[in-house]
Amino acid sequence: MTRNTVNNFNPHVSVDCVIFGFDGVRLNVLIIEREQGGGVSALPGDLILDDETLDDSANRVLYELTGLSDIYLKQLQAFGDPDRIKDLRDVQWLRNVREEPSARVITIAYYSLVNLQNFSPKAASFARDVRWEPVYELGELAFDHNVIVDKALEQLRLNLKYDPLIGFELLPEKFTLRQLQKLYEAVLNHTIDKRNFRKKFLTAKLLKPLNEKEQGVPHKPAQYYEFDRKRYMRIKDKFWF
Amino acid sequence: MTRNTVNNFNPHVSVDCVIFGFDGVRLNVLIIEREQGGGVSALPGDLILDDETLDDSANRVLYELTGLSDIYLKQLQAFGDPDRIKDLRDVQWLRNVREEPSARVITIAYYSLVNLQNFSPKAASFARDVRWEPVYELGELAFDHNVIVDKALEQLRLNLKYDPLIGFELLPEKFTLRQLQKLYEAVLNHTIDKRNFRKKFLTAKLLKPLNEKEQGVPHKPAQYYEFDRKRYMRIKDKFWF
Repeated sequence: MTRNTVNNFNPHVSVDCVIFGFDGVRLNVLIIEREQGGGVSALPGDLILDDETLDDSANRVLYELTGLSDIYLKQLQAFGDPDRIKDLRDVQWLRNVREEPSARVITIAYYSLVNLQNFSPKAASFARDVRWEPVYELGELAFDHNVIVDKALEQLRLNLKYDPLIGFELLPEKFTLRQLQKLYEAVLNHTIDKRNFRKKFLTAKLLKPLNEKEQGVPHKPAQYYEFDRKRYMRIKDKFWF
Repeated sequence: MTRNTVNNFNPHVSVDCVIFGFDGVRLNVLIIEREQGGGVSALPGDLILDDETLDDSANRVLYELTGLSDIYLKQLQAFGDPDRIKDLRDVQWLRNVREEPSARVITIAYYSLVNLQNFSPKAASFARDVRWEPVYELGELAFDHNVIVDKALEQLRLNLKYDPLIGFELLPEKFTLRQLQKLYEAVLNHTIDKRNFRKKFLTAKLLKPLNEKEQGVPHKPAQYYEFDRKRYMRIKDKFWF
């Protein structure tokens, strides 16, 4: 694929991808490292091409930089603060790669939540490294990428709040209450009282207990549950007509 | 304010505003008519300027075309299909006003929901008329504006579903169940069974009956209610920790 940013009608519009990866314990985010000095950490992102949709662009850019595909990317929103490019390292980088390094770049952010164990990213293009980093231990990212991650995290929490289904997709078909609690703790970034958590989920009757327990664990084997999708679809629409 | 689209770093990025207005019975959307031939209906929208944030741009453009201000605009998402400009009338219009009429324009859509009675739009700039149109009776709008309205409507329904508070903001402090039902019917675009509607809202205990009834109405006076915000805040977080 050839790219010609000079003739591009939208030379200063980019896409950035916030890929959250849950590893069973922590919430991570996919970070690339740019080839520059000691390296600069950033979200996978790049300029759009004239002939592609925004969705296609996000998928292409994610694939080019990290090798990942088959991730359902949802658009978060556009970020376009005129001051979003002010860090000296970013300005220097742009001087090397852009015709108009001082132009405000508008970026369309995308996000996704995946089970980290199913994806093995590989750095390519201008990414010299790609890795999962715990989202609550991120250092300073390029441009306004920390702001974008925060906004995506806010949206992720809202999604999980209004649609627990999103969370259950990250767990195995059968899971323990402990595994479920870990997921909520990872996204919310705080511990949750165990009894309170169990009580809420069990009274909501969203979980079906299975006739099966953990095996070969060093602690008291826990009961397995599965998510009651049918009941969920019913109570989900409780306030709807 | 002077505008120079030629030197603009983002010459093909615009904002468009979907302002929903509830009039007590119907859901409307604010539409401008462009000065062109027999007139072309469109959402209020225009190109962004280099030195303004996207939010500021949406507020400025809405004000310039309709005279409306003090409306809380929330970003919906960006739309950037390379084919979003293909209607002949749009192409002709762009030939008159743009340097590169064939360029794909990326637009950042904003939306809001207001009580129509509180706002009196006045056409200005390239709008020769501005009016509220029932959202379910819209004709063909410019560009992909029908798609944008549909997406905003979808988001509005989700908001109302997960946060009825948004709806109550559109009603008077004290209201009848009939008024509340009209609001839901207007947004959902279908009639709702009266008994079912009342039962759901009354069992949810979100409404406080007042010691007051309608006066001077030709039918049996209905009971007034008010929204129980405190209780709402409690049950809203039922599944949250």
